[in-house]
Amino acid sequence: MIEDKNTEKTDLSALGEFGLIEHLTRNLTIKQTSTIKGIGDDAAVLEPGEKKIVVTTDLLVEGVHFDLSYMPLKHLGYKSVIVNLSDVYAMNANATQITVSIAVSNRFPLEALEELYAGIETAAAIYGIDVIGGDTTSSTKGLLISVTAIGEVKTEKITYRNGAKPNDLLVVTGDIGAAYLGLQVLEREKEVFKVNPNNQPDLDAYTYIIERQLKPEARKDIVKLLEDLDVIPTSMIDISDGLSSEILHLCKASNVGCDLYENKLPLDPQVISTAEEFNMDSTTIALSGGEDYELLMTISQDDFPKIKANPNLTVIGFITEESLGAHLVTRAETKIPLQAQGWKNFEN
Amino acid sequence: MIEDKNTEKTDLSALGEFGLIEHLTRNLTIKQTSTIKGIGDDAAVLEPGEKKIVVTTDLLVEGVHFDLSYMPLKHLGYKSVIVNLSDVYAMNANATQITVSIAVSNRFPLEALEELYAGIETAAAIYGIDVIGGDTTSSTKGLLISVTAIGEVKTEKITYRNGAKPNDLLVVTGDIGAAYLGLQVLEREKEVFKVNPNNQPDLDAYTYIIERQLKPEARKDIVKLLEDLDVIPTSMIDISDGLSSEILHLCKASNVGCDLYENKLPLDPQVISTAEEFNMDSTTIALSGGEDYELLMTISQDDFPKIKANPNLTVIGFITEESLGAHLVTRAETKIPLQAQGWKNFEN
Repeated sequence: MIEDKNTEKTDLSALGEFGLIEHLTRNLTIKQTSTIKGIGDDAAVLEPGEKKIVVTTDLLVEGVHFDLSYMPLKHLGYKSVIVNLSDVYAMNANATQITVSIAVSNRFPLEALEELYAGIETAAAIYGIDVIGGDTTSSTKGLLISVTAIGEVKTEKITYRNGAKPNDLLVVTGDIGAAYLGLQVLEREKEVFKVNPNNQPDLDAYTYIIERQLKPEARKDIVKLLEDLDVIPTSMIDISDGLSSEILHLCKASNVGCDLYENKLPLDPQVISTAEEFNMDSTTIALSGGEDYELLMTISQDDFPKIKANPNLTVIGFITEESLGAHLVTRAETKIPLQAQGWKNFEN
Repeated sequence: MIEDKNTEKTDLSALGEFGLIEHLTRNLTIKQTSTIKGIGDDAAVLEPGEKKIVVTTDLLVEGVHFDLSYMPLKHLGYKSVIVNLSDVYAMNANATQITVSIAVSNRFPLEALEELYAGIETAAAIYGIDVIGGDTTSSTKGLLISVTAIGEVKTEKITYRNGAKPNDLLVVTGDIGAAYLGLQVLEREKEVFKVNPNNQPDLDAYTYIIERQLKPEARKDIVKLLEDLDVIPTSMIDISDGLSSEILHLCKASNVGCDLYENKLPLDPQVISTAEEFNMDSTTIALSGGEDYELLMTISQDDFPKIKANPNLTVIGFITEESLGAHLVTRAETKIPLQAQGWKNFEN
């Protein structure tokens, strides 16, 4: 399913390391006032002023985190930025800069790296961040992308994982479970393609969930929304693994328990219909799916009037004393302990 | 030549991602006052105050940048930090924090990663920096380490590559060429080992050059020395590739030329004797070897009295007008144009 319009193939060795970096970064412009010096010296130089800065990093590995047989390189570049920005926004900070390092085997021509960089540049442009550095090197096998993201935040707005208090509301942005189901559809089509390469898949019924997998967005808008609503969450975390795993991280860091209501989980209609088609339980998918890059936060009851009418925010439960544990309250009103699922890469 | 004292082998899947990160980072302590929050949230939080911060990143790939048949994992962890700190010091900045991301295949047991981390921790302790984040994930093949380093510097002290002016002195720290020759000795011993695994190599004559390859140091001391001497270089760059490649970077960035004197190149006696043994030209090695992690800088003539007696600093030439080009002045007093060698990984 990779769209390949390039007929030209340029060998990476034709450029060498410095030529390659210069070539790939030639279109980058500086947008942030805090970026004093970007690419081109031993290090980039930043001036955050009185704000605090946040730093986060993530590694994406071919064959582990992505499959190039259905992930176009441009989307991959875009997604590699998004997963890092999501961590910055989860601190209630504004993302300002990234560095991007790429290890790539000789099987990739220059044009493939240009596609990847086009996705990175698109994300940088849309989210208003500067690409200030990086490294491009060869690998013995496959493609690997390492991104470090930097953001700025006023001290009083920083939101950690450990600030949740009993009676706080548990709130999630957007909807969840779609990215995981999108991946199931793509995996199924890959198997179909292996059997019949001429088959033209009809994916109209899955456009939303596939886009959530291939081109996720980070919730920059939520940081602004919270500012506009004059709400500082008591804690916040991004949902890169499944919801239950992230809730448990937050409860552990804050020394609290929680009650999560199954009937409050925000699910897109495509998630419900596709889960039925795959004979899967949509609640399980929402709890364990991962890769939604939504934000999970806790908000003081006092702030409820400010958020209650907002379509971006759904109250899905509330925080309890630690001794009460973390539970899912099912539609049948029974309580079952929340269990972490999610990341299991080393078991593959 | 890897020393393996571990008889226990723990499978990585026994811990999972979060358990693995917690396990590997359990001994880390925070030393820098600017580190507000280290590992354990969506992002680390820093408070650089009125200083500017510098950011640099480097990727080390097994089979490209290192060979585990003679590079012990602890040394590799140490070196992966050093190569990044060197870039920070090349900005005349103090290194303060790093993030470390590791992709590793299942063939490595937990104990191997512990060795790697022990080297990272040793470097962090010696150089007084905080490990504030990272990512540990599986790879389909081999080991890859991505480090991002952060430093702090007062605005007036930042030293870029582009400030060299005609008549400035070209100055290098320490001595050069040793790391490359150390690699040649290790490669030779690896071939001997393949033929006769019972051979006990006698490496006494090569201790310095092997240490320069396996356990390089970054010149933190030079940043302090320059402060003590009250000297701010007009430009600076670290020597990760060969000297000639770095001189050409500096000349290009500053729009200047230079005369470099062959008879001024600082060479260790082991470099001279080992180069003879390998029937190689020591000047070529000094110019093209790389991995020395020394600093190359230009200094105003006015500052010459401050540096002339210092054993850490060697004047190796001077800056000229751009139109005159960059040249090596040989012992025979002939001028030949400097050529970039160095990094050629994509050609392998």
